[in-house]
Amino acid sequence: MSFSPLFERLVEAFRTLPGVGPKSAQRMALHLLERDRAGGERIVGALGEALARIGYCQRCRNLTEHDLCALCEDPRRDERMLCVVESPADLLAIEEAGGYRGRYFVLHGHLSPLDGIGPEELGLERLEAEVAGHDYEEVVLATNPTVEGEASAHYISEQLRPYEVRCTRLAYGVPLGGELEYVDVGTLSRAFSGRLPFTS
Amino acid sequence: MSFSPLFERLVEAFRTLPGVGPKSAQRMALHLLERDRAGGERIVGALGEALARIGYCQRCRNLTEHDLCALCEDPRRDERMLCVVESPADLLAIEEAGGYRGRYFVLHGHLSPLDGIGPEELGLERLEAEVAGHDYEEVVLATNPTVEGEASAHYISEQLRPYEVRCTRLAYGVPLGGELEYVDVGTLSRAFSGRLPFTS
Ligand SMILES: [Zn+2]
Ligand SMILES: [Zn+2]
Repeated sequence: MSFSPLFERLVEAFRTLPGVGPKSAQRMALHLLERDRAGGERIVGALGEALARIGYCQRCRNLTEHDLCALCEDPRRDERMLCVVESPADLLAIEEAGGYRGRYFVLHGHLSPLDGIGPEELGLERLEAEVAGHDYEEVVLATNPTVEGEASAHYISEQLRPYEVRCTRLAYGVPLGGELEYVDVGTLSRAFSGRLPFTS
Repeated sequence: MSFSPLFERLVEAFRTLPGVGPKSAQRMALHLLERDRAGGERIVGALGEALARIGYCQRCRNLTEHDLCALCEDPRRDERMLCVVESPADLLAIEEAGGYRGRYFVLHGHLSPLDGIGPEELGLERLEAEVAGHDYEEVVLATNPTVEGEASAHYISEQLRPYEVRCTRLAYGVPLGGELEYVDVGTLSRAFSGRLPFTS
């Protein structure tokens, strides 16, 4: 049972959002139609414009509606460091963590030959040109600590070998505030072999 | 930090959805832009059309994009019963519970003089015309069991007094599967005074 085909279509459309089940989708549709039509119009406007205009930054492949993204336009970023991430979400997470002030390069995925995702899809030619054309001292390969992420980092480090640049990887270890008991064995073993001198 | 004004605007727009905080809004925006642009276009299309075309059913004030809603168009509904609800969400909940096969009338709120919501805003003239023009035997006043819902039900029962129709109210009592210990005192006292003969 539903009110109408149009209402049903709206509920179905909301279900494509991550973490939104049939109940939440219905609640969203009713909320906008009953209590916040102006909010609904704002979603239509902002989403329509974002889909039409947001693409990849020509330098770093971050999301942007301009040729260059806000980070690439920012002259205060450290030109000596480049951080390679799999997704804009990872970039945002690193920015939120704070501390890093260098530049980024966004792969939008990882190497996955079976899915047809190779160096071209990840923009690795652009990445190599970026490194060749600037005086980076270090490239942080901040791909995910997964098999595919590791493979992609390995591939990129080989690709950048001809350039005078140090490739690094994020430190592995037990997460801050985590209890050892609940840390998976792979992480624990990595943390063990990477143990550091104790300083108090 | 954000990618761009347009991305920021999209995240803000998603935050108007019920139960969506800043983190989920960002996740939604990134999901649609990175992984499901077609899904994003479906939301733009369905929401835009819904906002432009979905209004109130001319008979029962349910949401519909036509003159009459699917329920009013359905000849199999029982013409002898009318159920008055505060919102389309309540209507959907009753339909989902099953069992009721009569017609509905949607108030889109409850009497709230301080907020300027009176009989006119709730379409009570239309409701009276509906009852006057049909052979209803019973009107179920299924407004919420709140002070405002009770007051609205009382007002409507007075308004319908000139007509040969029985006004009823949903049964009060302890919710099925609930533990008495956790039932609020008002509900418990109502359930006590409304106690029924035990049948095994
Ligand atoms: Zn950029
Ligand atoms: Zn109707």
